[in-house]
This record gives sequence, C-alpha cells and structure tokens, in this order.
Amino acid sequence: MRAITALVVLGFALAASAQRFVRFISTDNQEYYGDAILPAGTFDAAKSTKAKVITGDILGDFRITNQVKPIKKLLAPLPSERVRTVRCVGLNYIAHIDESNMTIPGWPILFYKPFTALNTPSDPIPISEGYQTQGNFTSSMDWETELVIVMKKKAFNISDDEALDHVLGYSVGHDVSHRGWQIDRGGLPQPQFSMGKGPDGWAPWGPAIVSTNIITDPQTLNIWTRVNGVLQQNATTADMIFGVKHLVSFFSMGTTLLPGDVIFTGTPSGTNLGKEIPEFLKNGDVVEVGLQNVGTCTNQIKYV
Amino acid sequence: MRAITALVVLGFALAASAQRFVRFISTDNQEYYGDAILPAGTFDAAKSTKAKVITGDILGDFRITNQVKPIKKLLAPLPSERVRTVRCVGLNYIAHIDESNMTIPGWPILFYKPFTALNTPSDPIPISEGYQTQGNFTSSMDWETELVIVMKKKAFNISDDEALDHVLGYSVGHDVSHRGWQIDRGGLPQPQFSMGKGPDGWAPWGPAIVSTNIITDPQTLNIWTRVNGVLQQNATTADMIFGVKHLVSFFSMGTTLLPGDVIFTGTPSGTNLGKEIPEFLKNGDVVEVGLQNVGTCTNQIKYV
Repeated sequence: MRAITALVVLGFALAASAQRFVRFISTDNQEYYGDAILPAGTFDAAKSTKAKVITGDILGDFRITNQVKPIKKLLAPLPSERVRTVRCVGLNYIAHIDESNMTIPGWPILFYKPFTALNTPSDPIPISEGYQTQGNFTSSMDWETELVIVMKKKAFNISDDEALDHVLGYSVGHDVSHRGWQIDRGGLPQPQFSMGKGPDGWAPWGPAIVSTNIITDPQTLNIWTRVNGVLQQNATTADMIFGVKHLVSFFSMGTTLLPGDVIFTGTPSGTNLGKEIPEFLKNGDVVEVGLQNVGTCTNQIKYV
Repeated sequence: MRAITALVVLGFALAASAQRFVRFISTDNQEYYGDAILPAGTFDAAKSTKAKVITGDILGDFRITNQVKPIKKLLAPLPSERVRTVRCVGLNYIAHIDESNMTIPGWPILFYKPFTALNTPSDPIPISEGYQTQGNFTSSMDWETELVIVMKKKAFNISDDEALDHVLGYSVGHDVSHRGWQIDRGGLPQPQFSMGKGPDGWAPWGPAIVSTNIITDPQTLNIWTRVNGVLQQNATTADMIFGVKHLVSFFSMGTTLLPGDVIFTGTPSGTNLGKEIPEFLKNGDVVEVGLQNVGTCTNQIKYV
C-alpha cells in the first residue's frame, strides 16, 4: 500500500513537472489543449509535432491524459477570450532605456494592450493603412521580444513572496511597436503607448506556457530576436530592473489580477531605437522572438 | 393595411426613441435590463424608481416590454464581463490641458483601464493602502467627470461619418485618478496613467446608457462634478478637442472595437491639477459626476 502511494505521488510529480501547455489544431481539425512533447534536442514547443491531450481547464482543474495527438497548427496558448487583461511593462532593461534616451524609472511603468492585440505564434502581424508609410511619416514598425507571465490564480494586494504561487507559467511574446504613433505622434511629452502598440494582432505569444515547475527561476533566461534570420536582440532576463515577482505583486496593488491575465515584462536592447540608421520592419519581414526553455514565435509583417 | 403599417412604424419609432438602458436589481432581488422611466422634471435615470423590462440583449436584438418593475438598486448599465475594453482619453479639453500645464496634443491620447476598474453608479470607490497617504506621499485622489461612449457594433477602420452608427449611446463616468501614482511616481517623463487610474472600482459609470436616438448630438451637453455638494467641474462637451465621432473612428484604426466596449472621453477643467491649494479626496468624501440628458453617478471614497 505504501509502495503504491509512493508510485502515485511520483507519477503525479512527474506529470506536474512536464507541463508545456499548448493549444493546437490537430489533424482531425479539432482544437485541443495539450502538454507539448518536445523533439530531442530542443526546448522549443513550436517544433513539437505532438502533444498529450489535457482535459479540463488549465487555469483550474485539469488532467494530462495519455492520449497523444499530432499538432497541425499551434494556437495562442489561451484563447483571447480567456485573457481578460494584457499588461505590458515599459523600460525594464537598462540597456534598452539607454538606447531609448530615457531614465531608469523608480517604479514599474505599466500600460495595457486590448485583448484584440493577441495573436498566435505563427500568424501574420497585420499592418493597417494608418500604420503604413504615409509621405514623410514612415511606418517605423519595430520589434520587442519579452518574457510573458501568465496568471493562474486571482491576486490582489499580494507580496513579492506570494507572487509565484499565483503564476501558471511563462511564454514569449512580441510587443509589436510603431515608433511613429508611440513617440512622434504620441502627444508629447507623453509617448502614446496605446496607439503605438494596440492594433489587432500586435501581440503574438506562445508557443507554450511553460509551467513554474519547469522554470523555477524566470530571471536566468536568454531572450532574443531574429529578423529575417539576423540576430537583433540578445540578452538575458537577469537584466530586468523589476523582476517577475515584483511586477506581479506591484500590479496587484489595489487591482485584481485574474486567472489568464498576461503580463509582457519589457524588452531588452537591440530595437531600432538604438540604431543610428533604423531598419524598421517592412511588409514581408519575418520576426522570430525567442526565450530560453520556452521557445519561439515566428510571425510575418503583412500590410493589409 | 397602410394605416396599420403606419401605426406599427410609429410604435417602433416611439419605442426606439425612449431608450435609457439601465440594469437594476428589483424588489424581487432579481436582475433586469430596463428602459428607465424618468420621474417628472428630471433627466437623471439615477432618480428613476421604475423601468420597463427589456428582454434579449441590449447589444443585439432586444425588446422593450410593457412590464414595469420597481428599481431597488441601479447597477452599471452593462456587467463588467460584457465590457471587453475600457478606453480613456487624456487631455481632451483645452482648459484642462492648461490647468495640467500640458500642450494640446495633435492626436487623441489613448490609455486603458482594466475592466476590473468598472463600478456601479452608487457603490463606494475603494482606496487600498498603496494609494492612501504614506509619509510625504499624499493620497492625492482626484476627480474626473467624463462623457462615456458605449459601442453597439463592431468597428474597424471606420470613418468619422460612420462612427455614430456603431454607438449604442452615452453614459457619464468617473475616471478616478491618483495624481501621485499618475505623475509624481509615473516614471517621468511618462505620466503613469495606468497605475494612477487602474485600481478596482475606479471607474463608476451609468446611471443609464442613453441612446443615440435621444442624444443625437453628444457635443452639446453640460458636464459637471460636485464634491460633498460643492460644484467643482462645470463645462460643456462642446469644448472637447476631439469629438465623439472622431474618437470612435480614430481608435478603430487597425483595432477592432467590440460591442460593449466603452470610451471615457476626457475631463474638462476643475480638477485639483488647477488648484493652488489642492483639495484631494479624503476617506468619506462623496463625488457626484453628472452629464446633461444622462444623469449622475454618486460614489463615496472609502479607504479599505
């Protein structure tokens, strides 16, 4: 009896330590939640071809079954309807603050994207006419790769020490940014974060939510961007000014964070803000955003 | 036959012209949508004691019935779950820009509140510890009364001329603002709209959504604030820099506005930003925000 209990506990522990939550369309054209099965030699769930089906609610009670389904297409790890609020952090890496000609903030800088900005790890990023080049106003589309926190439990006025108990895991996200609308037309002295970052599809995220069981310390991860294959950002989350624990606790001040809420935690240096001759994104460019132990999202810029 | 058609059309027109959408708890403790019946001599749905019950979905197909129910308590006109996104406009009245020592923006300034900020027209506005006075850091709670646009139809890349077809109606809202977190701790040069305006319950709105059938021109309405009975803001929506039509069309640029989305359209002068000696809100203060032809929300500041 004791031996059986030990086996059950071990089995549960193994299951719990293997959660790379994905949502996908399988070859039967049905949608599933799953625990991604990684091919040998990669941590990138975007390269997974199959997953163990998860039943129940990944934000509540769920079960990882032994049913394995092929992955035809990865979706965003949660449907947009389950993400009630998308929080984003500005100026959270010193080298990015330097390239932006800004000063280090005393407190985390928070802004929001509407949930309609969320996108899958592979679909195009649509650029509407108002964000395309118009005369002297260049399109000035820029990349920003960020670690994304996904909330599991309601959080209100919690401390830094309590924060990780409320987190389901981590994804990588692309905070697509139009510098013209963010800065030049931002109604200075206010940068206009919202008009510059809020359009539909300007927040690809995924490819998985990697559980806090796997990533026990989110401040040790390499983070990078490749544009048309060329490395543009290459840093580590160790360089965040405000780390994951503090961001969650700070944003819970007087404000309820809900299961499924996501927090984009700011981008490192290597954006066009730091280039003497900017290389803004053009129609057809392909951006890969990556995070160690999580994986990549790869999306093409598409004028629509 | 022709006479009957005429009567039906007239009946529909009358019904359509009488929509002051409210949501309320009745004396049977059930929740209803209704068309508020105004007492004589007032346009303020907050003073209504009864309403005609509305069946169906006020964002889709609905019917105003002849069943009249008493109003025990008015709720926010839509449940927070139906409001997917709360947009807010900064610096949209010249006199308020002057009192804020800001310059007139070239384009509307957009920011967001999370939907958890929404509050009823009568419940307390909770002030958590982090927003109360701490040593030299005063609570600096301020009022901002605003016309609120409520979206009826999905809008994407629409023109100014198309805007009103997508609007259900107008409410009055209170963009509760903590100047300390918005400005002093805002990580200058960026004012921190989000931390200064986002906490739970910091967006009372209502008391009704008054349909575009009743308010055909939203740029002609008196707008005011009373704090503990004293008039503090007193202006007209005619003074908006960017009017309702342009805000809706501008925010639809590349971004889908959804039925039930609300837009707070900025506040006129008369806030504490313009006072030599500020009179910031204290625990127990009562704020009435009012809009002509719509009504009032009256909420008490409550340290929690």
